[in-house]
Amino acid sequence: MTAQTIAKRTEDYSRWYTDVIREAELADYAPVKGCMIIRPWGFAIWERIRDALDAMIKETGHQNAYFPLLIPESLLTKEAEHVEGFSPECAVVTHGGGKVLEEPLYIRPTSEAIICSTYAKWMSSWRDLPILINQWANVVRWEMRTRLFLRTTEFLWQEGHTAHETEAEAREEVARMLEVYRRLAEDVLAMPVVPGIKSRSETFAGAVETYAIEAMMQDRRALQAGTSHFLGQNFAKAYGMQFQGRGGALELAWSTSWGVSTRLIGGLIMCHSDDAGLVLPPSVAPVEVVIVPIYHSDDDRSALVDAARKVGEALKGAGLRAKVDDRDHLKPGAKFFEWEKKGVPVRLEIGPRDLAAKSAVAVRRDLGKAGKRAIPFDGLPGEVAAMLAAMQQALFAAARDRREKYTFDVPEYGPFKDLLNGDLGFVRAGWCGNAACEAKVKEETTATIRVIPADGRNAPGKCVVCGTPSTLRPIFARSY
Amino acid sequence: MTAQTIAKRTEDYSRWYTDVIREAELADYAPVKGCMIIRPWGFAIWERIRDALDAMIKETGHQNAYFPLLIPESLLTKEAEHVEGFSPECAVVTHGGGKVLEEPLYIRPTSEAIICSTYAKWMSSWRDLPILINQWANVVRWEMRTRLFLRTTEFLWQEGHTAHETEAEAREEVARMLEVYRRLAEDVLAMPVVPGIKSRSETFAGAVETYAIEAMMQDRRALQAGTSHFLGQNFAKAYGMQFQGRGGALELAWSTSWGVSTRLIGGLIMCHSDDAGLVLPPSVAPVEVVIVPIYHSDDDRSALVDAARKVGEALKGAGLRAKVDDRDHLKPGAKFFEWEKKGVPVRLEIGPRDLAAKSAVAVRRDLGKAGKRAIPFDGLPGEVAAMLAAMQQALFAAARDRREKYTFDVPEYGPFKDLLNGDLGFVRAGWCGNAACEAKVKEETTATIRVIPADGRNAPGKCVVCGTPSTLRPIFARSY
Repeated sequence: MTAQTIAKRTEDYSRWYTDVIREAELADYAPVKGCMIIRPWGFAIWERIRDALDAMIKETGHQNAYFPLLIPESLLTKEAEHVEGFSPECAVVTHGGGKVLEEPLYIRPTSEAIICSTYAKWMSSWRDLPILINQWANVVRWEMRTRLFLRTTEFLWQEGHTAHETEAEAREEVARMLEVYRRLAEDVLAMPVVPGIKSRSETFAGAVETYAIEAMMQDRRALQAGTSHFLGQNFAKAYGMQFQGRGGALELAWSTSWGVSTRLIGGLIMCHSDDAGLVLPPSVAPVEVVIVPIYHSDDDRSALVDAARKVGEALKGAGLRAKVDDRDHLKPGAKFFEWEKKGVPVRLEIGPRDLAAKSAVAVRRDLGKAGKRAIPFDGLPGEVAAMLAAMQQALFAAARDRREKYTFDVPEYGPFKDLLNGDLGFVRAGWCGNAACEAKVKEETTATIRVIPADGRNAPGKCVVCGTPSTLRPIFARSY
Repeated sequence: MTAQTIAKRTEDYSRWYTDVIREAELADYAPVKGCMIIRPWGFAIWERIRDALDAMIKETGHQNAYFPLLIPESLLTKEAEHVEGFSPECAVVTHGGGKVLEEPLYIRPTSEAIICSTYAKWMSSWRDLPILINQWANVVRWEMRTRLFLRTTEFLWQEGHTAHETEAEAREEVARMLEVYRRLAEDVLAMPVVPGIKSRSETFAGAVETYAIEAMMQDRRALQAGTSHFLGQNFAKAYGMQFQGRGGALELAWSTSWGVSTRLIGGLIMCHSDDAGLVLPPSVAPVEVVIVPIYHSDDDRSALVDAARKVGEALKGAGLRAKVDDRDHLKPGAKFFEWEKKGVPVRLEIGPRDLAAKSAVAVRRDLGKAGKRAIPFDGLPGEVAAMLAAMQQALFAAARDRREKYTFDVPEYGPFKDLLNGDLGFVRAGWCGNAACEAKVKEETTATIRVIPADGRNAPGKCVVCGTPSTLRPIFARSY
């Protein structure tokens, strides 16, 4: 492995992205096209994201369950729009146990079909509602163009599916989970997002409305980072989700679904990392602080390794995820380089002079040499915790500033097109709500409406494409 | 739902098992034959088991990762014995993205093929070893006869896969993980097990040796509850796992794999539950203690619900998983009945007289009315914790006593056969090691060699079937 194996962002953004993943050992290609192996470091990040979100999902009253991987064709086809959207993307099992199956089975691309048909069996009275269930699962969608984490044929996700007595409750749920996703993205991943509603053309197949959070990556493209769907009574009709209402009559349930996936790791990488490799927000770093003893002779070795271990224990005792790198066959420089590429937020170096001074040299991953400073052993746990908190905030602030800098308000179609074609960022502009105008933008810029934020839903103006009066003010951008 | 919907164990053991699952809302049948929906209560138990085991797996130096669901046919077929064992059980994907695939893809029945071929890419020097990775995943094996949790077409499990420099290290790993499984079964699930080695005929397809833990269920049949395989260099040869050794020459790695699955929940049910429904060892109970306020009028209601909530907070503050059942539309008796069927270890009842006396009536699930007693509010957290610890031990002791009572040493083939055909339990007897004698037992009793325990590997005697001198003394039993 040579010293510099990561492309520069400014020279080849796309290669930079895969280089960062390879060098941080986050993931590897699988023998099946479009599939991915999530390596231990990448998976440990996913565990941090999953555990944080799982706690939020449970705090908001949901329980986890598990539904089958395989869905009979006849079940998937009951909701017409849904099957039209998903069946072309499906992997289909035609043989099982050495025989041709009587009915083909689809590997779940999403689980509305199997879950709604099960809920139908579980509900008889309004007292059985709401049903608030989430599952952590793998899904398969046959993708033509794939990219590690961002778009893979198989991916890991959570999918929440809820059924409610009233439309208002279902709408509340959709909003509640969008807010949970916003908090996950901003407070845990340090990734600022714009929440809002999707246009009809970008709505989930079978849904009445789709809400999403959209983040801006370092190349100023948008990433859809999570979605929350209001399904109305569409799936209730298709799968028989009905119950005896308070008045005694049979009623159709109102349902929702919502999900985020391993794609978030792709977002994390493209939001914070730099030309030296991965940069991890402390909240999701499997190791928050690595301690590297620096010794040049065997005489020094045991005293320095001991000191590093003591510091490590003190940091762990303070609840920090600390690791002592006491490998003997690597030089300190090689260790620094490795942990830098892996994105560990803080590095502590302890050499003979530091030990004599009873202090360690601390380096913050995002500041590098510029932020290097000595910290006395005594104060380390508190100081390191403060450094981590500051870094978490700094990453968020940098990403938010970048998004604000590269979000433009452009009322005229010419400059609007140029901004989008020049990959200059998010563009806010009036839209008449007409699909034809939306399609024209897509055709001429490849950009789409990412979301219509809350403040863009009643914003009088003129459509940037056709000039007619408009009330909508979406965010347009090229996206992943 | 009528008052008694669970069959008696003595009358219909098999129906009892499915009744317990249905009434405790652990699982439901799926539209695809042999597949299962794990309902929230069942999944919460699985989360407890998974989290306990995951911590043990990490403590022993392993990391989690994730490998793809789909395995190309050509990859699976590289290890001849392995594919012979598994390919008849596989679900096969032949279509993806609306097209016929060039090569069929198998849904993983287990992941040696994909994981070993990946490890081959990750190892170049002895310094890259050991590789110690685990994954939590779903797998599919096409089963003809299925039973909820015990044998389902799709199931959830963890599979550890490790690669080592030497045979000794790989053998140590196999033993280490078997011991982890023994601790999980005995200390967490309160399910006593016999660890030991499998006979050749029961060895994992492609392995050199398979070790397992076997538990006795209440119908005295055996349940294989976890396996740890020594794969020798078989998979290293098939998948090219080689590395430059310390001496400079290329060497083949030694590998292992080990797994437990949602089958453990089936074992849990059949080990501890009774005619009133599920009985959960406190360690895996999603709710350890439920508090039911008992009131007969609206006047009483708020004082009693308040008292129950205060008790609940005190118990939660002491780290117990407590739940207050303050549902207003159910009578106390209906609540008792529901939590009893769900196996919650301790129930606290608080009625007006209890409140006046500042105490609660505590009932332990396994003792029922016989163990009913009043406990002052002040001492509740400590007393309930002690009750839970006592119950955990009592369940283990009862299961161990049952196993000891129903384990027989029988040197003569006639009584040996009668015991097995009479479903009377485990039978220890000499075996010459000959597959023909093992096959004869299976044919005439349907029983198999479950394991050869450590103390049965050098135990001079005579083969119970052919009478020739033997050194092995396995446990024979009918099994799930």
